Amino acid sequence: MKKQPIGVFDSGLGGLTILKALRRQLPHEDLIYFGDTANVPYGSKSKAAVTKFSLAIARFLQSQGVKLIVVACNTASAQALSELHRQLDVPVMGVIEPGAQRAAAVTQNGRIAVLGTEGTVRSKAYPKAILKRFPKARIIQQACPLFVPLAEESWGKKPAAALIAQEYLKPVQKSRADTVILGCTHYPLLKPVIAKILGKGVTLVDSANTLADAAQLFLAGRAQLETQGKGRVQLYASDDPTRFKHLAEKLLGEKIGTVRLKKLDL
Amino acid sequence: MKKQPIGVFDSGLGGLTILKALRRQLPHEDLIYFGDTANVPYGSKSKAAVTKFSLAIARFLQSQGVKLIVVACNTASAQALSELHRQLDVPVMGVIEPGAQRAAAVTQNGRIAVLGTEGTVRSKAYPKAILKRFPKARIIQQACPLFVPLAEESWGKKPAAALIAQEYLKPVQKSRADTVILGCTHYPLLKPVIAKILGKGVTLVDSANTLADAAQLFLAGRAQLETQGKGRVQLYASDDPTRFKHLAEKLLGEKIGTVRLKKLDL
Repeated sequence: MKKQPIGVFDSGLGGLTILKALRRQLPHEDLIYFGDTANVPYGSKSKAAVTKFSLAIARFLQSQGVKLIVVACNTASAQALSELHRQLDVPVMGVIEPGAQRAAAVTQNGRIAVLGTEGTVRSKAYPKAILKRFPKARIIQQACPLFVPLAEESWGKKPAAALIAQEYLKPVQKSRADTVILGCTHYPLLKPVIAKILGKGVTLVDSANTLADAAQLFLAGRAQLETQGKGRVQLYASDDPTRFKHLAEKLLGEKIGTVRLKKLDL
Repeated sequence: MKKQPIGVFDSGLGGLTILKALRRQLPHEDLIYFGDTANVPYGSKSKAAVTKFSLAIARFLQSQGVKLIVVACNTASAQALSELHRQLDVPVMGVIEPGAQRAAAVTQNGRIAVLGTEGTVRSKAYPKAILKRFPKARIIQQACPLFVPLAEESWGKKPAAALIAQEYLKPVQKSRADTVILGCTHYPLLKPVIAKILGKGVTLVDSANTLADAAQLFLAGRAQLETQGKGRVQLYASDDPTRFKHLAEKLLGEKIGTVRLKKLDL
């Protein structure tokens, strides 16, 4: 049978943390990553717009013969997932349910904090998903708008990052949450500074690892896991692939291949 | 579209803990449970025999039009899963990967203990699955042969259960594992006594909840989750459905419908 790739998309760079986790955990899979750099950021746009972008990307990935599409973006997962399921034949997984499941499973004191973009916080997608399976959970949300630019600048180790994180995390510490969801695909890039401030008693739930786990179980269930050969990665961006490549290599800390330009049919 | 049930099977009663978790988490799904009471226990039988039983049950479930088969038995998951994937068209999920994933995600000190039947411990299925994604994990395994009969007798609250559990859990406590996998579908029935002995600092990873989570993500990915109507449950046993019904109601603490007798085509 022909090897089928997994498709991954995000509004821009953040989803590369999920790509990295997929490569580590499923090293034999071919991966196609689409960064919608022409339309980034999604967080401040309407649901209709985010759905339109997501459908166009997903249709492109479907045309590449993918066996699974991973929505590596919280905003698109919260706003477009049901429409993607309705309109596509290929399976689609979002980032919110796996994170919510793991947080509900991990917490010992029932107090969970969600860090996210303003859009994700406003959508209440995480609280809804957590409360479905853990009605007594006490959840606080904290929007961290400066985290995305900090991560994109690779400033995670600068003193400014620690100061900003301390400020955002004050209400989280006060809430005595023992479990904190990194509810944006950029945030794993700031994990060291967040973990240092919150300390050892707090578990960080990371979209990247949870989604890679979920994708593995999904493909295993359908007997579609590749078990041999080195997986290849192909990256696409909808605008300025050169800049995307530069930033992606900075974020991932490794060389990546050519990034192809692919304008979306909107 | 016609409503398709989820099929669940176990060598006997233990898998009912997974059935219960599925009903709680996916209340709109129809469920078919098959307890292979004619061939229980699987733990002491050959791989060939376990595979033969599992295939016969899975074929029966497939003939009932299920959209997913959940192998609610550690022994069958460890020994027959790859053959089920090879020979069936319907997706199949086992119990080991989801538990291993969650344990690797939950542990803070990298020390994980696996409690299981002698067969499951001997197969090393959990250590293999954990080490794949967490190569530095330190894993101890502990076979607890008395736990299954204790659970089947509903003796979890008797003083004997505490004494036996203390004995089995001594090496676990000594290992300083902060995460303990209940690697047998019967063990969630003994969760209170196990949790009390190990104390608050230890997270118990429960096959029932992890597998229900995995099934939910799987069906969501394929847009096959039922979102309305009350799900129905149909139980089958391969021997003496009356005894099975009696024990099942005792274990689950609630009334269940008729259990039908279905002899396997072996």
